[in-house]
Amino acid sequence: MIDIDPWSNALADYGRLFSQFGMQEIDSAITSKLRGKHRLFERNIVFAHRDFDKFVDAAKNGRKVAVMSGIKPSNEFHLGSKLTADELIYYQKEFGAKVFYAIADIEAYADNGISFEESRKVAVSNVADLLALGLDEKNACIYRQSKEMRVMNLAYIFSKKVTYNMLRAIYGERDISLYMSVLTQAGDILMPQLEFGIDYTVVPVGVDQDPHIRLTRDIAAKLGITLPAATYHRFMKSLSGTEKMSK
Amino acid sequence: MIDIDPWSNALADYGRLFSQFGMQEIDSAITSKLRGKHRLFERNIVFAHRDFDKFVDAAKNGRKVAVMSGIKPSNEFHLGSKLTADELIYYQKEFGAKVFYAIADIEAYADNGISFEESRKVAVSNVADLLALGLDEKNACIYRQSKEMRVMNLAYIFSKKVTYNMLRAIYGERDISLYMSVLTQAGDILMPQLEFGIDYTVVPVGVDQDPHIRLTRDIAAKLGITLPAATYHRFMKSLSGTEKMSK
Repeated sequence: MIDIDPWSNALADYGRLFSQFGMQEIDSAITSKLRGKHRLFERNIVFAHRDFDKFVDAAKNGRKVAVMSGIKPSNEFHLGSKLTADELIYYQKEFGAKVFYAIADIEAYADNGISFEESRKVAVSNVADLLALGLDEKNACIYRQSKEMRVMNLAYIFSKKVTYNMLRAIYGERDISLYMSVLTQAGDILMPQLEFGIDYTVVPVGVDQDPHIRLTRDIAAKLGITLPAATYHRFMKSLSGTEKMSK
Repeated sequence: MIDIDPWSNALADYGRLFSQFGMQEIDSAITSKLRGKHRLFERNIVFAHRDFDKFVDAAKNGRKVAVMSGIKPSNEFHLGSKLTADELIYYQKEFGAKVFYAIADIEAYADNGISFEESRKVAVSNVADLLALGLDEKNACIYRQSKEMRVMNLAYIFSKKVTYNMLRAIYGERDISLYMSVLTQAGDILMPQLEFGIDYTVVPVGVDQDPHIRLTRDIAAKLGITLPAATYHRFMKSLSGTEKMSK
């Protein structure tokens, strides 16, 4: 049923994402449209996407674009967190995209039992790192999920757009707190469009996070709004090379 | 498995609530402690309870007490809504209890597909009726679920305290939006204790709403906090006498 688990540290067969799940490779048709060269694309670190070509066209045509990502504040930044931060900052500069950065304290609670207050403390350090890396905070919206009413409202609204079968097909059998958490993440991703007048959103993530992208695109399709684009970076292996770098 | 359905208009066998589910009758040991006579108790309209005796003792001993109820803003007040309002107002006067009144717009959306904005309009009329009936707004907290961050946060927190088996045993098979809605109602009921320093809360409800009380008491037990008390009024039959009065 499922072999890509966003909450596990195990490596999986990502080839199936291309052959069976509709992910596309980043090719020269896309990279030739980028103004500047960047090691993320030069070195094929960002290697796959969904609808990124449409996002790039939207940005070039003057549409309002956003880049959305987040962090589960369970620990300090590591090289995997930095990779996402580099992408956010690059997309912000390259496309003038407004950055939405979610401190995923609801996921940290659902997945790891970390209280919102503990998350807040770690998040301060995470956000300091993000700013130190060069994010322009004047064109950014950084928030905690548990304090962003609009995101929680969207999670409730989306709960009527999904079925258990849909959730099980994407995530396997999970407890209700994790299902509520993924609906909240769909709220994070669609909030720029639904609440901030953004026309097109791209979500840079590790390839293991694709289940969240698929769920959110399914929900967007049901709502009849633009499906968010995504770009995928290769997962960062742990130092031992046997797991993904995780926290 | 379940024959008491808080969302149905069908009548059910409430005798089982006493014999199998631990509800107790209101008796003279309780009514003798009330300062004033009130038709709600004189006429046995409020006929059953859970831990109301403990709530009354807490109030008499100067503990901070609250009375919590709400309304699904799907229509104008009817005689059933007025009954709950009468109880709120009576408990506010009798015990000096702070009133918490939830506009259950999340339930209205989950159960009836009513948008938060539609709910807001109906709620204005509902709250006007509540105030006209004599609620002292200076000792009350009236809010919409979808705008009360603390209630939504509690729903997320409680989601890790329940299992599907627990929810199914109480409510039967329901979609995820209704399960999220009942966790939110548990948030409504426990917010006075967890966020406002209240020592004891009583929830006056129609007897058909007992599933929500049982769920919330189970969650309170898991959290190790005081279980909320409840009083139950006889359901108000519809004019035809074949269903409960509903909206």
